Amino acid sequence: MTYKLEMLPREKVFRDPIHNYIHVQHRVILDLINTKEFQRLRRIKQLGTASFTFQGAEQSRFTHCMGVYEITRQICDNFKRNYPTKNPGDGLWNDDERIVALCAALLHDVGHGPYSHTFEHIFNTDHEQWTQRIITSKETEINQVLRQVSDDFPEKVASVIAHTYDNPQVVQMISSQIDADRMDYLLRDAYFTGTKYGMFDLTRILRVMRPYKNGIAFDYDGMHAVEDYVLSRFQMYQQVYFHPVSRGMEVVLTKLLQRAKDLYEHNHMNDFEMPSLLIPFFENNVGIDDYLSLDDGILNTYFTLWQNYPDEILKDLSYRFLSRKPLKSAEYDQETEKILPKLADIVESAGFAKEYYTSTNTSYDLPYDVYSPNSNKNRTQIEIMRDDGSLIELSTISGLVNALTGKISGDERFYFPKSMLVEHPDDIFSNTYEQFQEHIFNDEII
Amino acid sequence: MTYKLEMLPREKVFRDPIHNYIHVQHRVILDLINTKEFQRLRRIKQLGTASFTFQGAEQSRFTHCMGVYEITRQICDNFKRNYPTKNPGDGLWNDDERIVALCAALLHDVGHGPYSHTFEHIFNTDHEQWTQRIITSKETEINQVLRQVSDDFPEKVASVIAHTYDNPQVVQMISSQIDADRMDYLLRDAYFTGTKYGMFDLTRILRVMRPYKNGIAFDYDGMHAVEDYVLSRFQMYQQVYFHPVSRGMEVVLTKLLQRAKDLYEHNHMNDFEMPSLLIPFFENNVGIDDYLSLDDGILNTYFTLWQNYPDEILKDLSYRFLSRKPLKSAEYDQETEKILPKLADIVESAGFAKEYYTSTNTSYDLPYDVYSPNSNKNRTQIEIMRDDGSLIELSTISGLVNALTGKISGDERFYFPKSMLVEHPDDIFSNTYEQFQEHIFNDEII
Amino acid sequence: MTYKLEMLPREKVFRDPIHNYIHVQHRVILDLINTKEFQRLRRIKQLGTASFTFQGAEQSRFTHCMGVYEITRQICDNFKRNYPTKNPGDGLWNDDERIVALCAALLHDVGHGPYSHTFEHIFNTDHEQWTQRIITSKETEINQVLRQVSDDFPEKVASVIAHTYDNPQVVQMISSQIDADRMDYLLRDAYFTGTKYGMFDLTRILRVMRPYKNGIAFDYDGMHAVEDYVLSRFQMYQQVYFHPVSRGMEVVLTKLLQRAKDLYEHNHMNDFEMPSLLIPFFENNVGIDDYLSLDDGILNTYFTLWQNYPDEILKDLSYRFLSRKPLKSAEYDQETEKILPKLADIVESAGFAKEYYTSTNTSYDLPYDVYSPNSNKNRTQIEIMRDDGSLIELSTISGLVNALTGKISGDERFYFPKSMLVEHPDDIFSNTYEQFQEHIFNDEII
Amino acid sequence: MTYKLEMLPREKVFRDPIHNYIHVQHRVILDLINTKEFQRLRRIKQLGTASFTFQGAEQSRFTHCMGVYEITRQICDNFKRNYPTKNPGDGLWNDDERIVALCAALLHDVGHGPYSHTFEHIFNTDHEQWTQRIITSKETEINQVLRQVSDDFPEKVASVIAHTYDNPQVVQMISSQIDADRMDYLLRDAYFTGTKYGMFDLTRILRVMRPYKNGIAFDYDGMHAVEDYVLSRFQMYQQVYFHPVSRGMEVVLTKLLQRAKDLYEHNHMNDFEMPSLLIPFFENNVGIDDYLSLDDGILNTYFTLWQNYPDEILKDLSYRFLSRKPLKSAEYDQETEKILPKLADIVESAGFAKEYYTSTNTSYDLPYDVYSPNSNKNRTQIEIMRDDGSLIELSTISGLVNALTGKISGDERFYFPKSMLVEHPDDIFSNTYEQFQEHIFNDEII
Repeated sequence: MTYKLEMLPREKVFRDPIHNYIHVQHRVILDLINTKEFQRLRRIKQLGTASFTFQGAEQSRFTHCMGVYEITRQICDNFKRNYPTKNPGDGLWNDDERIVALCAALLHDVGHGPYSHTFEHIFNTDHEQWTQRIITSKETEINQVLRQVSDDFPEKVASVIAHTYDNPQVVQMISSQIDADRMDYLLRDAYFTGTKYGMFDLTRILRVMRPYKNGIAFDYDGMHAVEDYVLSRFQMYQQVYFHPVSRGMEVVLTKLLQRAKDLYEHNHMNDFEMPSLLIPFFENNVGIDDYLSLDDGILNTYFTLWQNYPDEILKDLSYRFLSRKPLKSAEYDQETEKILPKLADIVESAGFAKEYYTSTNTSYDLPYDVYSPNSNKNRTQIEIMRDDGSLIELSTISGLVNALTGKISGDERFYFPKSMLVEHPDDIFSNTYEQFQEHIFNDEII
Repeated sequence: MTYKLEMLPREKVFRDPIHNYIHVQHRVILDLINTKEFQRLRRIKQLGTASFTFQGAEQSRFTHCMGVYEITRQICDNFKRNYPTKNPGDGLWNDDERIVALCAALLHDVGHGPYSHTFEHIFNTDHEQWTQRIITSKETEINQVLRQVSDDFPEKVASVIAHTYDNPQVVQMISSQIDADRMDYLLRDAYFTGTKYGMFDLTRILRVMRPYKNGIAFDYDGMHAVEDYVLSRFQMYQQVYFHPVSRGMEVVLTKLLQRAKDLYEHNHMNDFEMPSLLIPFFENNVGIDDYLSLDDGILNTYFTLWQNYPDEILKDLSYRFLSRKPLKSAEYDQETEKILPKLADIVESAGFAKEYYTSTNTSYDLPYDVYSPNSNKNRTQIEIMRDDGSLIELSTISGLVNALTGKISGDERFYFPKSMLVEHPDDIFSNTYEQFQEHIFNDEII
Repeated sequence: MTYKLEMLPREKVFRDPIHNYIHVQHRVILDLINTKEFQRLRRIKQLGTASFTFQGAEQSRFTHCMGVYEITRQICDNFKRNYPTKNPGDGLWNDDERIVALCAALLHDVGHGPYSHTFEHIFNTDHEQWTQRIITSKETEINQVLRQVSDDFPEKVASVIAHTYDNPQVVQMISSQIDADRMDYLLRDAYFTGTKYGMFDLTRILRVMRPYKNGIAFDYDGMHAVEDYVLSRFQMYQQVYFHPVSRGMEVVLTKLLQRAKDLYEHNHMNDFEMPSLLIPFFENNVGIDDYLSLDDGILNTYFTLWQNYPDEILKDLSYRFLSRKPLKSAEYDQETEKILPKLADIVESAGFAKEYYTSTNTSYDLPYDVYSPNSNKNRTQIEIMRDDGSLIELSTISGLVNALTGKISGDERFYFPKSMLVEHPDDIFSNTYEQFQEHIFNDEII
Repeated sequence: MTYKLEMLPREKVFRDPIHNYIHVQHRVILDLINTKEFQRLRRIKQLGTASFTFQGAEQSRFTHCMGVYEITRQICDNFKRNYPTKNPGDGLWNDDERIVALCAALLHDVGHGPYSHTFEHIFNTDHEQWTQRIITSKETEINQVLRQVSDDFPEKVASVIAHTYDNPQVVQMISSQIDADRMDYLLRDAYFTGTKYGMFDLTRILRVMRPYKNGIAFDYDGMHAVEDYVLSRFQMYQQVYFHPVSRGMEVVLTKLLQRAKDLYEHNHMNDFEMPSLLIPFFENNVGIDDYLSLDDGILNTYFTLWQNYPDEILKDLSYRFLSRKPLKSAEYDQETEKILPKLADIVESAGFAKEYYTSTNTSYDLPYDVYSPNSNKNRTQIEIMRDDGSLIELSTISGLVNALTGKISGDERFYFPKSMLVEHPDDIFSNTYEQFQEHIFNDEII
């Protein structure tokens, strides 16, 4: 038997609180899990700073990737049983696609760095590109496993991540508005945060999913289950992912990394502060080994060391991050945005360098979208299939989904040190604080 | 109002997947949570290497400590409502004890180091002593918060941890065979591992708990709920805590730390390998700041660096730990123990330094015990209270608990490299491997 | 101590899968639970014919009433702790209202008859009026318990049900768009049906509820939790309460009761068929004892007997109901409604009396509404309270709730025997069936 | 395709809170579910009087039978995938056995009567024999469905129930110490009562189950999961099934049915009291139609009518049953059993006919047993299979199971009217009550 189709002598299972068991049946999947690049995901938290707000949310990207694999496996099983292709081009499922789908599902997040979006923002990296690079670079263990399937297999898997693979069913399984990725993270994040908003009926959605020529559609019967998923996703963004306190910690982290970078670039970083593993990032010359050597704990190690180092700002921000001292915030809008420079100046006059102690932070999400020819980043819309095989786009039959369609949700907040809100009657800066506080009312800037 | 009794203007809640919400009502508790020493617990996993087996088990000691606090708070509420003291010495609950109980509950694990038991073993530290030291040393933020209550308050809290506090009800809440600590970790570990063995009926147990002169007893009505808890605890030890694969990773970690220590002691560690934050431990001269600067991520950072360093054993063990390559194992008993030296020699002759690549590992637990005058480490037995107020020890009325009483459970395993079990037909060592494999049958050494 | 305030010597708990325990602290509540009128609710299913579709949904109105009581108790506890009144008219909570609130919560559904809405429809009864009558009639055990509190207490409790009680907080606890009644049934029905749509975060909603002058409002912080509740309620209606198959059984039941009534009125019911306990209903002369002697099992007993009796239609419909043979259905709209008479005629020509074998059935729900001065049945809108105490109506800040506001949801279906859809090639009626089937496409009438 | 193997065009699912979905794939299974005899199980509660103690426990035998079917289906799927037979007599799974296994699983409880054990006791019926009779009698719809498979198929299915079927794997799936029946009811009863004792890891047990020559064994790896199941079962018996209050209601029901039978036999039942559907049972001349016309609601209907009838004892016991007035109880032992006649006499002297108002009630269970050549009712012991295929009986490797093995658990209680325990200072019987109460202490008879 070829390596591609080699089955394990006995199915191996991984216990998981979301899917109960994750079933691994192919040798190639087990070998991928055992690579050092995949194991590294154990050391990167799935939700970054969210665990500062939702204490249970300490799950790693490793568990999420295993979950995406498992959901994809269940979709394949369902498609194979109920919608096997009979003739090429009939739009049904060709189970030869299973392995590429499973590998892409498992590896889709392998390029994530520590505290991902924040880190990407400062060091100008992109986790999707890194994922493809890790899959296709001959030096990685992952690539070596994939090449055993065939020489062009790494490229194939990478093309699923890049959305250029030629089977739209496989692409949509891994990446669309209702894909294995989103379904796993909503359930997983709901479980670990202990919130209920992310719950939806996965079993039912899997049952009503079906392949068709242009990708994946959902039985009309299951419309409400799909609707419920869209709403759950919306609620998780509003309630968990956009939580102002997590974002207050994210701002601290951003400023801390920025300060380190600035010190390095101005040659103000002395030997003791020098973070050897970060230098390639400071110098914008990052090899694949440099990238893969990072994880959350390594950043935290530098922060721990920096707490004892000379630069006051680096030291203070490191302390704030490790000891969970988030910046506070208030909402602003187009109108009140105008006074933010004034507020930043007040913060500066209270003794905080405004460059590092104030920030705006915008959360936004497009809860659902339909195809629009002029948009620059198009999303695959959710298609519902009627008994006679005709398709109908979800928002045309769900008033609720329609209410969310194409509307960006989120808020814009201005962040600043908590002490700006405290009364300081005997402080020489007391006027400064009062002046600041006059602009904050009902959690908004006025 | 004194600081001791100062209540927050509005109760603050922390979302938690086990207890839903954790309710903080006292200023002192919130201040303790916000100290850097307590926040450090976010960076230490509760179950060490268990997450290599149960992938969801990535929860930190921080969440556990919050949970122990919450259970203790609920016990106090229950005792206050139903069993308030009327006269000194009546054996009922004096709610003045609440603050000391809550602080001890929250802080009971604050002295844990990274990968705790393994680390303790190699560097000869003791987390209970460190907990007391962190509470009573004037240099910590925790001590500074506690001293605001009163000068002798840190000592009082520490004495609860040391079991020397004079109110046995408070001591037993935090530490006994059925205490807030064990109840939280069983439920929490069951939730995060996704196993069901650790589930028991916490609400019912809290309802049937009651103070008496010598500590805490349980209503006769609730006997079965207590019995169920003892069995759940037993099952978690058998199924989760003693899992052979987690112990295989623990052995790798032990050997890795041992190798680093050995290299340092023999001056074979060069500058690149030098782990500045570990040196105090190598030199057995650990200050409180040294101790508190460690966490899981810092150890992992050194392991990451060591993967590129000259010493082959340090390098290999670091890779094995970070990339999850556990040592394999087989059970042995008193009889077969005798051939372990021979097996170790075979492993050595296959090219693995036996000092670092073989090990025995013994798991043991005393699932339940009764008071015995001659034992050196006595446990408080579980007392059941009948309608007339008389007490009866649990194992005398529960056949199941009796079956577990005083019996050590667990197993003894011999660990070795996985490749010893593989067939190597063309290898020059093929005889060596065959010789080894003849001694392993049905997962046991024969 | 007066009976009104008499507490039980020790709190009594009832185990419940939704609220874990239901806590009874007052003598009067325990006495009400033990009345025969309240115990009768054990013999009436909460969801009528829904258990024919969702097999777990066999829970009784008894458990629901206990749950509404428990939620109300928790609201009172929360209001007492956090918002106790200081001066009359300050809009805060006066805990003297607790007993009337608890009694009204417990008893709010005591007037439900068997298979309630269907039965009410045929026999022209109204469960809210019966609830008030049972509470205020001196012959009931419930009334006798309530009168021990005070002579006017039964009237007070009844006035809460009637929405005429003078404290709007108490009224809204029991009956408003987000009240203890709806919150309990959504969670309970979700649990017993095994669907997840009805789940929402009860604990969080209880935390953000607060009394004010005109009733009950919700903290701004909790807006999303309230939004989630509104959406859950909507989803339960769409997915569970309006399920076409349950309605198909409801139609059978309606026709069956109608047939029995018609036979009686035309003196065609012979002695064997005579259902002694239903005669008062046939004769529209129902005493309180007549009403309270009915339950689901008594109707089923008559149906069991009628399966062996002469009238063919009564016999057949009884069999269909007991053996779960629902009528089938197809959706219609204003346009296709016109051909329903023709379809009914076809059904008649296939041998089914159209009066008893065809029916329209309309489901409708107003998922959320705002106050509108011209509406005939006004609902209390959901008010959100900002930090400064100002109120804002929910749909103005929630796009999702706004999308549901004031819009009736549901569908209109035409019901007919299943055999109309089957192919009957050799049947003399084969043309008849074909003719019928031409009008059904994609589950709709065309 | 023959009817036996006819698959539904599309799998049909039934939503279930325990198994999420129950999957029906064969026409014969769907046809059996739709028979009137199977639908009748909706009207019989699974746990009889237990819902008087655990209010959620209102689930019917219908849902349980569906669950036993579903577990059996999953076992067959697992056996087919992993252990398909290659040669006759190899002890592996022959999937031709699937249909008989599924039918027996579904139908195994179809012979249950209302309030089963109580009813059986009084009227000397046996539900296992009735199950076989319903399956094999040509007049039932179930038999007609089964005969479509083959003429001898009803007998085959019945022989599985009777333990005489020649494939021990099929017999043990449905009936053994760890079978689909027990596994479903433990999980289901735990869910509906809201207790956690009955929870165990069904998925894991199904994974480690395997066929062998003499039946079904379990992988050694899964020993602890099986152990946990045995303990869960034990706990459910202790905590739920043997609850003294449910048994107090069972005693009322027994005495009520006994009184009716006694009145009938002595011709003291007048026309108004005459329960037509019970007469065949009074006369010990029960046809299959007579048996199948009964359900819980029909008995309750007679009790409702009897509340208004002349016989005082029948009237009072009917009221007690419908309004949940259980008899109270105290434990006795061999010693104190001797004074029960005296206590019964005291009850009689307080005005209660001792024949109908006092009773003993013994609960007993054999939590686990091993094969013993001399026992009259042998149980199949639980076999654990080691890596090399050898078997080892569970209790020899589990100390906990060993502690339960062969030991009968339960208690013996004496039941009497609650008013015997109340103080009656001004009553003429006050001495009588005092005399009685002297014999009750700590819930025991002394």
